[in-house]
Amino acid sequence: MSDEPRESDDRSPDRLPQRAPLQRVVLDTSLFVNPDVRTSLGNTPTEALETFLFLAAQIPILEFYMPPSIFGELLHFIEKDRVPGDLLLILHQKPPKKHELKCPAFLLYELVEDTRERVNKGLRIAEKAVRSAEKKKAEEIIQDLRRKYREALREGIIDSKEDVDLLLLAMELDALLISADQGLIHWAEKLGIRWLFPDRFKDYLMGAIRRAEYLGREPGG
Amino acid sequence: MSDEPRESDDRSPDRLPQRAPLQRVVLDTSLFVNPDVRTSLGNTPTEALETFLFLAAQIPILEFYMPPSIFGELLHFIEKDRVPGDLLLILHQKPPKKHELKCPAFLLYELVEDTRERVNKGLRIAEKAVRSAEKKKAEEIIQDLRRKYREALREGIIDSKEDVDLLLLAMELDALLISADQGLIHWAEKLGIRWLFPDRFKDYLMGAIRRAEYLGREPGG
Repeated sequence: MSDEPRESDDRSPDRLPQRAPLQRVVLDTSLFVNPDVRTSLGNTPTEALETFLFLAAQIPILEFYMPPSIFGELLHFIEKDRVPGDLLLILHQKPPKKHELKCPAFLLYELVEDTRERVNKGLRIAEKAVRSAEKKKAEEIIQDLRRKYREALREGIIDSKEDVDLLLLAMELDALLISADQGLIHWAEKLGIRWLFPDRFKDYLMGAIRRAEYLGREPGG
Repeated sequence: MSDEPRESDDRSPDRLPQRAPLQRVVLDTSLFVNPDVRTSLGNTPTEALETFLFLAAQIPILEFYMPPSIFGELLHFIEKDRVPGDLLLILHQKPPKKHELKCPAFLLYELVEDTRERVNKGLRIAEKAVRSAEKKKAEEIIQDLRRKYREALREGIIDSKEDVDLLLLAMELDALLISADQGLIHWAEKLGIRWLFPDRFKDYLMGAIRRAEYLGREPGG
């Protein structure tokens, strides 16, 4: 279905009205895997994905996308036998055109400064751990060190190529990005990418079903 | 002086021939400060800068640039009284247009993956330091930790906004970047920015003087 506005006379009721442009949505695995945001859709990742597919099938005004790298992550969490082949039609798998896309150069400053601060913080955490070695056991200190170090150097940043895939795909498609990852949301803000509070994902789908029904019924629609 | 090619009849011998387009060169402080590359120009940063100015004044075919942030760094190393006002005419201070420039998005993958690997390496170094605390004194371990950690997380990367200034300015001006910083050279490679082995900087200036003389003498030049 084309989303280009054009005049046409054959508007049968089962066709989407021209006035409703397709909205593209890029989904992260966290929506199905992270228990804090998944619960409204299901008790397990598989259930959450099934509910999503059931709802998404009723929304002709939205197009859902996921980078293959993220889809690969999702497959680790779900019972593949229970997910119908519809998935492949409803949830489009597309990598971003990474060699064509450009990003604003001032982001390099932010990435570099952010990394620099985190790296310094990581060193301070490590020094503290060494100093505490006189009082506690090495294994205990190391557990604590790992947690604090990862918190300081990983949280709130994009730290994998899968994260970059999600951002760039949303940028390329001018899509709405839905993720529960704070680092991704932080970067979506910088790049001007639309994003949604992830716990509102189901409400968004329900709203889209109602909207699609309304548009389908509208006179002249 | 314009570098646009155009027809003109008033070619007096002291004017630059039209056929020699201006080459822009972006300079890092390391050329004057780093003893390994500075020595061909002078024994101190001030001497090196004086020699550079003496040579650069004889090269009308090159335009020299430095971002103000880098110039600010250089001022910490030189005796300001000994540097003539010519400096400000010969070495142009210009920040990059950081909000207009774009960089290829695939670089985000490289930055993110590179940082991820370094961060993991940093954690392994920290763990090793904690484990060695049973055998050595804390202060001794921390000295060693700092050195290894900085080596792993800082070397060969761009890790300051001054570094980004240099890269973006070279990109914006389509200039030749001259620096002794391996991280900068590594990123110049990725971005398609021309760069020069820093220890050849003086040779490059001497060659440019000869070239400018030759072009100035050429019949019809």
